[in-house]
Amino acid sequence: MNKSTILTGITTTGTPHLGNYVGAIRPAIKASKDANASPFYFLADYHALIKCSEPEKVRHSSLEIAATWLALGLDTKNATFYRQSDVPEIMELTWMLSCVTAKGLMNRAHAYKGVVAENEATENTDPDKGITMGLFSYPILMAADILIFNAHKVPVGKDQIQHIEMARDIASRFNHIYGEHFVLPEAIIDDNASILSGLDGRKMSKSYNNTIPLFVPEKKLKKLINKIKTNSLEPGVAKDPTDCTLFSTYQAFASEQEVTDIRQQYAEGIAWGEMKKILFEKINSEITPARERYEALMQEPAHIEQQLQEGAVKARAISAPFLLELRKAVGIQKIV
Amino acid sequence: MNKSTILTGITTTGTPHLGNYVGAIRPAIKASKDANASPFYFLADYHALIKCSEPEKVRHSSLEIAATWLALGLDTKNATFYRQSDVPEIMELTWMLSCVTAKGLMNRAHAYKGVVAENEATENTDPDKGITMGLFSYPILMAADILIFNAHKVPVGKDQIQHIEMARDIASRFNHIYGEHFVLPEAIIDDNASILSGLDGRKMSKSYNNTIPLFVPEKKLKKLINKIKTNSLEPGVAKDPTDCTLFSTYQAFASEQEVTDIRQQYAEGIAWGEMKKILFEKINSEITPARERYEALMQEPAHIEQQLQEGAVKARAISAPFLLELRKAVGIQKIV
Repeated sequence: MNKSTILTGITTTGTPHLGNYVGAIRPAIKASKDANASPFYFLADYHALIKCSEPEKVRHSSLEIAATWLALGLDTKNATFYRQSDVPEIMELTWMLSCVTAKGLMNRAHAYKGVVAENEATENTDPDKGITMGLFSYPILMAADILIFNAHKVPVGKDQIQHIEMARDIASRFNHIYGEHFVLPEAIIDDNASILSGLDGRKMSKSYNNTIPLFVPEKKLKKLINKIKTNSLEPGVAKDPTDCTLFSTYQAFASEQEVTDIRQQYAEGIAWGEMKKILFEKINSEITPARERYEALMQEPAHIEQQLQEGAVKARAISAPFLLELRKAVGIQKIV
Repeated sequence: MNKSTILTGITTTGTPHLGNYVGAIRPAIKASKDANASPFYFLADYHALIKCSEPEKVRHSSLEIAATWLALGLDTKNATFYRQSDVPEIMELTWMLSCVTAKGLMNRAHAYKGVVAENEATENTDPDKGITMGLFSYPILMAADILIFNAHKVPVGKDQIQHIEMARDIASRFNHIYGEHFVLPEAIIDDNASILSGLDGRKMSKSYNNTIPLFVPEKKLKKLINKIKTNSLEPGVAKDPTDCTLFSTYQAFASEQEVTDIRQQYAEGIAWGEMKKILFEKINSEITPARERYEALMQEPAHIEQQLQEGAVKARAISAPFLLELRKAVGIQKIV
């Protein structure tokens, strides 16, 4: 049986937070152990350049993200874990795909159109203000990321579905011109993916500046949990778990039985301070072993690099011969 | 003294013709021997994909062009002669540059605007009809070709001046964000470059289908020269050398003294048949030794490949360490 290839990229522009952990990293770590699949996870450092022109941030984020995934027990035997920039075939394929991609397809990208709409809302500006060619052609790079490994499935959020459709369009166009080389990838949308709320109750997101970093020291974790916004109901007054950040966060970490117990305590008027303490203990006990490994790994960057190099070797064992096939298909090849 | 780096790309989508020879190849071969310069010549096979989706044509054109330049005596000791696709650093730099290039800059490219204007002239069509992302972002690839070797000078036709200006803009932007890494290239416009007319009197060009291939067999060369359009003046009637394709072509190959002699013969009413014979002899005697080498080389593709591989080694000795420097500048680097 051919295992199905599942591909996930992680843009290296920030420090992983609890929202990333619950929504993406934890399920991916679990999936990395699925012996019936061939999962690919990569540090999307060339994507990072689109959003971030601070070299130190890109560099440090790559380190933190790699250490995070390894600390959490990513199965690097079953999965292929690599850095995008270690696979230069991706950049070469990006150009090949550019030559078969209609500019009109990129014009229709939601992300691009969104910025144009914002620009147009401000009068007298260039509709393309602030848009780089990196941002504009980002879906082609993403298509190359997927197609170079002929990934079957790409788990994405709803905002990314269009990019998978574009990768399919681009792959079909290439296949039509040059013969059948690419599998058409499918988006997997996990409607049950947990979305964590941040300190202010909005979705936890770097852009809202409301995150709890995943591996902050214990004391700091406690402090941040204490900062989660609640209403001002006094201890002893019954509380509603609906739309309560503390409750929903607890749900993301606790068993069903534990959630039932806490729901009861809400009804009985648990104090917010008490709930925060319970929440801290719950998260902290899940995170602590990984945090310890994370801190050790951060002291051992050579080990992390070693893992990425091994991943690159596995990845290039596929991408390098495949690129040769593609080069030949388009007429780019050695003379003899 | 630092030698100045001069870079020239040759798109691999056709068979070199006499117009290419006189206007570009012959002066480049001469320049390749200039010990005071460091000339770079490359087969632009990744550019070819923009215009041409026929693999066999791209492949065969690469072979013919490489054989042509070598047969004509390109000095591969002094010059660096390589195939674009053998220098993967170019593709990686293309992406880095994309991330600092404003989309607005590409919107202003003459070549792109030309196609849009054509589309708009036809009612009811998409202005971007038929435009691929390869065509749209072509100036970025060209900037990468130039900047990866920090070329000082790029000999170009007038229609290409804007692309060099764009390469300068992109390089400046990168330098501004990430520090001074790139030399700003300069266009060299040779106003004296000979432009040959084709069989029908218009500029000799593949797109007009009026070319004389450089290395056709002698008989075929004679036949094609006989097809060059003339007026219908009889032998013995004085003829005007102005706007005469036979005369201007002769000028491109003959010495000043020879041209003066022929001008006299025009005044004396030389027959067109006689003039065609003289022109054939002139071109043929210049071309014959190279044609013989060309035919021998085409039987020895391994030798051509060998030359290109040696060129790639020379090129990558520059591009590979420079790319590492650029990667580091943007934050894409190994952890240790």
